[in-house]
Amino acid sequence: MSSAIGNKIKVQIFGQSHSEALGVVIDGLPAGEEIDLNEVNEFLRLRAPGRNKYSTQRREGDLPKILSGMKDNRTCGAPLCAVFENKDAKSADYDAFSEIPRPSHADYTAYVKHNGYNDAAGGGHFSGRLTLPMCFAGAVCIQILRRAGITVNAHIYSIGDIFDASLDANGKLCEFPVFNAEAGERMKGVIEEAASEGDSVGGVIECVVWGFPAGFGEPMFDNVESRLSYGLFGIPAVKGVEFGAGFAGANMRGSQYNDNFCIEGGIIKTETNNSGGVLGGITNGMPITFKVAVKPTPSIFKPQRSVNMKTVEETELIIKGRHDPCVVPRAVPCVMAVAAIIMYDIYLEGK
Amino acid sequence: MSSAIGNKIKVQIFGQSHSEALGVVIDGLPAGEEIDLNEVNEFLRLRAPGRNKYSTQRREGDLPKILSGMKDNRTCGAPLCAVFENKDAKSADYDAFSEIPRPSHADYTAYVKHNGYNDAAGGGHFSGRLTLPMCFAGAVCIQILRRAGITVNAHIYSIGDIFDASLDANGKLCEFPVFNAEAGERMKGVIEEAASEGDSVGGVIECVVWGFPAGFGEPMFDNVESRLSYGLFGIPAVKGVEFGAGFAGANMRGSQYNDNFCIEGGIIKTETNNSGGVLGGITNGMPITFKVAVKPTPSIFKPQRSVNMKTVEETELIIKGRHDPCVVPRAVPCVMAVAAIIMYDIYLEGK
Amino acid sequence: MSSAIGNKIKVQIFGQSHSEALGVVIDGLPAGEEIDLNEVNEFLRLRAPGRNKYSTQRREGDLPKILSGMKDNRTCGAPLCAVFENKDAKSADYDAFSEIPRPSHADYTAYVKHNGYNDAAGGGHFSGRLTLPMCFAGAVCIQILRRAGITVNAHIYSIGDIFDASLDANGKLCEFPVFNAEAGERMKGVIEEAASEGDSVGGVIECVVWGFPAGFGEPMFDNVESRLSYGLFGIPAVKGVEFGAGFAGANMRGSQYNDNFCIEGGIIKTETNNSGGVLGGITNGMPITFKVAVKPTPSIFKPQRSVNMKTVEETELIIKGRHDPCVVPRAVPCVMAVAAIIMYDIYLEGK
Amino acid sequence: MSSAIGNKIKVQIFGQSHSEALGVVIDGLPAGEEIDLNEVNEFLRLRAPGRNKYSTQRREGDLPKILSGMKDNRTCGAPLCAVFENKDAKSADYDAFSEIPRPSHADYTAYVKHNGYNDAAGGGHFSGRLTLPMCFAGAVCIQILRRAGITVNAHIYSIGDIFDASLDANGKLCEFPVFNAEAGERMKGVIEEAASEGDSVGGVIECVVWGFPAGFGEPMFDNVESRLSYGLFGIPAVKGVEFGAGFAGANMRGSQYNDNFCIEGGIIKTETNNSGGVLGGITNGMPITFKVAVKPTPSIFKPQRSVNMKTVEETELIIKGRHDPCVVPRAVPCVMAVAAIIMYDIYLEGK
Repeated sequence: MSSAIGNKIKVQIFGQSHSEALGVVIDGLPAGEEIDLNEVNEFLRLRAPGRNKYSTQRREGDLPKILSGMKDNRTCGAPLCAVFENKDAKSADYDAFSEIPRPSHADYTAYVKHNGYNDAAGGGHFSGRLTLPMCFAGAVCIQILRRAGITVNAHIYSIGDIFDASLDANGKLCEFPVFNAEAGERMKGVIEEAASEGDSVGGVIECVVWGFPAGFGEPMFDNVESRLSYGLFGIPAVKGVEFGAGFAGANMRGSQYNDNFCIEGGIIKTETNNSGGVLGGITNGMPITFKVAVKPTPSIFKPQRSVNMKTVEETELIIKGRHDPCVVPRAVPCVMAVAAIIMYDIYLEGK
Repeated sequence: MSSAIGNKIKVQIFGQSHSEALGVVIDGLPAGEEIDLNEVNEFLRLRAPGRNKYSTQRREGDLPKILSGMKDNRTCGAPLCAVFENKDAKSADYDAFSEIPRPSHADYTAYVKHNGYNDAAGGGHFSGRLTLPMCFAGAVCIQILRRAGITVNAHIYSIGDIFDASLDANGKLCEFPVFNAEAGERMKGVIEEAASEGDSVGGVIECVVWGFPAGFGEPMFDNVESRLSYGLFGIPAVKGVEFGAGFAGANMRGSQYNDNFCIEGGIIKTETNNSGGVLGGITNGMPITFKVAVKPTPSIFKPQRSVNMKTVEETELIIKGRHDPCVVPRAVPCVMAVAAIIMYDIYLEGK
Repeated sequence: MSSAIGNKIKVQIFGQSHSEALGVVIDGLPAGEEIDLNEVNEFLRLRAPGRNKYSTQRREGDLPKILSGMKDNRTCGAPLCAVFENKDAKSADYDAFSEIPRPSHADYTAYVKHNGYNDAAGGGHFSGRLTLPMCFAGAVCIQILRRAGITVNAHIYSIGDIFDASLDANGKLCEFPVFNAEAGERMKGVIEEAASEGDSVGGVIECVVWGFPAGFGEPMFDNVESRLSYGLFGIPAVKGVEFGAGFAGANMRGSQYNDNFCIEGGIIKTETNNSGGVLGGITNGMPITFKVAVKPTPSIFKPQRSVNMKTVEETELIIKGRHDPCVVPRAVPCVMAVAAIIMYDIYLEGK
Repeated sequence: MSSAIGNKIKVQIFGQSHSEALGVVIDGLPAGEEIDLNEVNEFLRLRAPGRNKYSTQRREGDLPKILSGMKDNRTCGAPLCAVFENKDAKSADYDAFSEIPRPSHADYTAYVKHNGYNDAAGGGHFSGRLTLPMCFAGAVCIQILRRAGITVNAHIYSIGDIFDASLDANGKLCEFPVFNAEAGERMKGVIEEAASEGDSVGGVIECVVWGFPAGFGEPMFDNVESRLSYGLFGIPAVKGVEFGAGFAGANMRGSQYNDNFCIEGGIIKTETNNSGGVLGGITNGMPITFKVAVKPTPSIFKPQRSVNMKTVEETELIIKGRHDPCVVPRAVPCVMAVAAIIMYDIYLEGK
């Protein structure tokens, strides 16, 4: 199996880039939760393509059709299924890749795994388009978590050497999700420069979950970090995940790194949060913080060396079509979605 | 649940630092696999405590007792259970921590999660000692994988600003697992300097899996990166995981990062391996490479600020007892063990 | 979670009786399997309602719309999603049951479980209509199993005191699935008699899987009988499952019951098959045989005693609407479907 | 995998009939639950062998050794591991069965599944002895459930044509668990008669769970009946499971079968309980009742026809050694154990 995640809720994603439709089934949602579909749609727009020059020009309405699981705008205990139609698919653009794989894409591995029977059009089931139903599930969980006092937010932490301001719990996300507008402009400059050369860039996303109570998660393997990272690596292009001080923390001394305990308003807290809100795999009541490394978009317009998988010969490949020079802005809601799904699942499991 | 991992095989770990014994059940191992217990014991010695001045002086024989699952030195299809006795436990050292949690340890979160009923002695189920049965399971998988042509190796990538040489597939691991002896000496110097000040350091471990065939793993969530990271965050002190070029790759351009395809000896390979052997979550036949951030040992001997969990008052804490100033050397076999368990599980699932 | 089944493949069902649509996602199907949708539709017609006087008069086209997972009539490795629209739903018929539960229906337990937020219309997610996507999944598995030499068949074993002839491996199922036409006529008589009195009847279904190789299934809990029964009790109205001689076997002596081994054409077989093809939870190469008890349709047209769940008062209930006086004929393909899903899952897991 | 069961708690069983030891790990038990080990041992004695002439004469102390998971007689949140040593194993008795399988035993299927590498001694992992750790886990769950007002009891429902009196909620179980002593004597007569002829008998066990609240379990597949039957078929020799009126109910009319609702003391109940406490897979607050068919002991002392698996030749087999002429009395605590494990798991999952 592959495209399902969660213990207490199960989020099952389906679809290919160019199939009739794609969608998600969320099984295990408690009954009676009100879902504001307008707010869901607003969230989905954050990852929508075709809105600016930094993202693919493919245009889809991308409004979910709810097939089941809701009654009178509330969950009813039955699995919630939402589907999205695929309308603006241009399969012809992808014909070549069923023989000549794009470097650092899944074309080759999908071909090997599925013995050539994979649906190569648009990247098939490996397409970034599959993050659409993932974001739908995340948007649902975000609403329910918020009613429990838990908020999730994320932003572009860095692109190249340009860093955003600190993440703001209540900061409203926009299509280019940064809190320092000036840094955002410079990031856009970096992306445009790469794009103008037919190249692409990656970046780092930071996400924080506020208000999550202490004592949740399991020791050893089903811990909060294991489960979040498991979900986050399910987002295409993610190649690294770190919690709190992460890799930088590995270079600290214990006396710098350790989060001393203190009492604030009668509640036990830590003075710093290098642990990212997780100790021994279990939430400690501090904000849960992590960063995610997003690789540069593999689809670039420079000539690349590839091979013909059928004839096993080396060849050159030139990619055409519609591709984001930087997927980081659109990956921000995906990171939030995964964080919300996993943390809601952990929340439902109880302390 | 918590302390079990794996799909096709299930590795269930049990025990506390000071319980009667600790151990592991491995369910789902194919019958007929020969297990060389001497080699297992040799591997376990790599994480054994008390061997040098960089690690805790607690001394345990740590020889596994096989309770079930083997016949005539071969697996017999029944769950394999191995146990290790706890003999040199000094619970008195830990009495304080059931009230006053050590900063950046699991004392506080275990207390909250288990409503004060956790076994605090020695860190209980959260102790690094629980990596012993984890390493046993890994040692078994390493032997079986090797017969399939798959090898796993790891080393200390860096401590502080000191970096080891490149990882060697056949390099024999020792108690301080580096390939550049001179760099190793300088790393030891960094550790000793911190230790002499009652402080601790962290570091980065690199692991590589060679010989794993292409086409394994699942798209989206049950992919190779998700599953490896899920397991790796189960090792205490791990706070970051990255594949291939990882976070550094997020700062590259696509034209630098992309691994162009080529043909070598009739086999499709990539010229570089920034993807770390995984594309779209599926193995591409190249070595699977990843790095793991290990935080500095939280047990330091400097006074720290903490709280009394029962009275909810701030207090100072001075840790005594036996603690590694740097767990990175002993974490190297743990990383290998988790890599072997997960990759063998993926191997058994088939393409 | 609830509405998902399977280890190696995962069959996730969604929908309510009167929701926009209902459907199924099958994740984990190997790529390259050809699926004949005409044959699928033929199978679905076996459980279709409204075809004769023994079944509900609700009429739905019930043709699946494939949203994803196929390419050129073959599975492509991505999750296969099929949906069915709900068109002929008459919710008004069910308004009463959201307050006054029908005896021996799920109205009361759904109300309690979901705190009154369940979708009561048509039985919601508990409706027999949900066996439609279940049968779709089964029809897909039946086709794939057949290519591996494994066939699944089932029939009405008994209604009242009337028993069908022995189950025929190649017997073609029809809308009233028996092999002895004369017995079938008498069964219909029993059903009609009950129906004429506003009453209902149950019955027993027998299913056999031929050609399944020996050595599959797991010892102890994930054994063939555990997994089949787990699936079969997922069919509404099933209240008993027995393998081979089953309950009658409990009344035999060992010397009668035991299946002696013999050799036929160089292959080890058993002379009898009281074990129903499963020993120690593992297939022995003989036909896998089991029977399923189906309770009488709970919807009868006689006045029944019930309660008002909101006011907690006793009341009388008279059920109107469209209901089968006997669901046994339509349950036969459902039993086959579950058998095919589970046995294919076990088959994929390997010996 | 095979020998693990449970969602919220995971019960992992290990061991072979003649391995060093056998045991169980229970992962996920809430911390703070007091466990009375004397009461556990009393329960284990109900399935102990060698106590009378109806059961095998193998003698084992069978006292559990707790390796982990408890502190001060309470669960501590870490996995609870209990082991039992094997002392009175006589492997020589079983040498023949590694070549010549006993009819209706798992010798043949274990051999095929494990390619001849299975541990055949004493039936290996398929031995009835593995129900010892299963009963340990059940005994733990029974104690915890009782504190929540939920009681589990079972008895011999019938052997041959002799039926016990109705199951008594508070009836104290003994080594021959019936409530009508006179019927018990006649059952013993049936067993002795078969034993005197070197033959064996089976029987039916009935189990009831009282006090379980309404609204638990999941719709469709993870329902109460699916999960209980899944567990019950994990007990060796179980070949049928039915809930409430079961197979007899299949022969009723709806007007007889339906459980009309009523109000008793302000609580919604049903007048009858043909549904066995489960509607739509979810508990309705009535007692959960089911029956289990136990086949006759396959080990009989009459000559039987078998085959040599290595030479593929027909041969005759005469079984020697120690075997129960009827395992039904000792299976009664096993049925209770599985019922307690599953129902506690469902209880922990919440409504």
